[in-house]
Amino acid sequence: MRRAHRIAAITKQLVDHPHQVFPLGEFADLFQVSKSTLSEDLAIIRETFNTLEMGKVETISGAVGGVRYMPYVPMLDIYSEVSRICKKLQEPHRILPGGFVYTDDLISSPAILAGVGEIFASRFQELEPQYVVTVETAGIPVALMTARALNVPLVVVRRQSRVTEGPVLTMNFLSGSAQRVETMSLSRRALPTNSRVLLIDDFMKAGGTLRGLADLMGEFECDVVGKGVLIETGWPEEKLIEDHLALIYLQEVDVESQTVKVKPADWIRKE
Amino acid sequence: MRRAHRIAAITKQLVDHPHQVFPLGEFADLFQVSKSTLSEDLAIIRETFNTLEMGKVETISGAVGGVRYMPYVPMLDIYSEVSRICKKLQEPHRILPGGFVYTDDLISSPAILAGVGEIFASRFQELEPQYVVTVETAGIPVALMTARALNVPLVVVRRQSRVTEGPVLTMNFLSGSAQRVETMSLSRRALPTNSRVLLIDDFMKAGGTLRGLADLMGEFECDVVGKGVLIETGWPEEKLIEDHLALIYLQEVDVESQTVKVKPADWIRKE
Repeated sequence: MRRAHRIAAITKQLVDHPHQVFPLGEFADLFQVSKSTLSEDLAIIRETFNTLEMGKVETISGAVGGVRYMPYVPMLDIYSEVSRICKKLQEPHRILPGGFVYTDDLISSPAILAGVGEIFASRFQELEPQYVVTVETAGIPVALMTARALNVPLVVVRRQSRVTEGPVLTMNFLSGSAQRVETMSLSRRALPTNSRVLLIDDFMKAGGTLRGLADLMGEFECDVVGKGVLIETGWPEEKLIEDHLALIYLQEVDVESQTVKVKPADWIRKE
Repeated sequence: MRRAHRIAAITKQLVDHPHQVFPLGEFADLFQVSKSTLSEDLAIIRETFNTLEMGKVETISGAVGGVRYMPYVPMLDIYSEVSRICKKLQEPHRILPGGFVYTDDLISSPAILAGVGEIFASRFQELEPQYVVTVETAGIPVALMTARALNVPLVVVRRQSRVTEGPVLTMNFLSGSAQRVETMSLSRRALPTNSRVLLIDDFMKAGGTLRGLADLMGEFECDVVGKGVLIETGWPEEKLIEDHLALIYLQEVDVESQTVKVKPADWIRKE
């Protein structure tokens, strides 16, 4: 196989398995080339990804060394990706009775979800989360795509426990917006103590669910290293959690005029 | 940019967006090369993917033409991927009181899920499903990864309806194993009539849930083109659905000896 062929094959392997370290010897054996030839191949891939801002390719030296690809979405791409979702949210047919906004179709498009997952991964990977944690149901797709981009397991907290989970830890929490007591539960074996976890959800109003998730992580003696939400509402102003990263602000839903006011979060800049 | 660089960039774009058609002009403009040069680049990628059985790269001619990548997992890789999951299922610590098998950690590993999603996509893509449909909660990760590999939206049927979904269609169905009446509901706007849908779930005993899903699809006037399950139990022998594709047979769980008997489905062959 010539260089161009090797580059196609290696790029595929790296992109298909973000954050997975491939030993150089594995590729060298597969293509029957020396490690120095292989290093030149990798340099070309790295250069290309850098120039086109397509993510990072990193070579790790040492015994457990190798090469890995890490998704990285530059600010300009975050801006255009988030703006595209905002535009979709403003479609008038989304407004439901009671001022709710229909979002199910957005969080069911694999392309949108993959993009959002890579944005969260880009922003949180330096904190080295070992698990992505969410609560069923609507948060699962966004959380799974984030977990995929980070190559860490997804842990889904349940609203109700099931017999197939074994012993579970169950906790009541106060849903912030409705001031209602709700329940969440998680299998004892789902999460080892002292893990570094990233909380991801699709939608946040007062933040009661995320607050509850964070408290549950405390019960598992885990360390919450970050919290990400796709959409945050402007109301209530007082939130129950701090330091969360939202991608989209939902400012207002006007049922009369059938308009949704929405914008990218302030940290997302055009340049 | 030289050929090797272009190939790295194009491969990344294709692999990141399975089943998405990229017009050749888009790449030609980006790299400032002629379409014939670009065609040579694509031929190299296609050749490499063919030789290493890494999926298919297809060029579509005509006005809406372009190039796309389709995941395709060869039989030998299906066998080793499924065997690896079987091996994990046989770990004795998975057996829960009542003879249940703990599988949550398997369906939370993005690498395993991505592999399973590509296997289902490989087997069902010729039937051209337009939606992947599952029911909450445990089926969502497998279904989402299948939807991603096929580049079609994921539709999640709920156990209970929520106010944020708008008008829903609710249906009772008989859970096959427990002979219990259960409920599923789906937003009216989630699925257009006459869609071709692929049903995906993580676990199947008698098949009551899949049977219910298929009936619900009938209510939406949709056409079920395929049904895939990750794990099927050997009991009961009589199933409520036909023509489903399972990857793994769970033959027996022996609580006494703490053993799980499990094997790849019969259609999966070693050679």
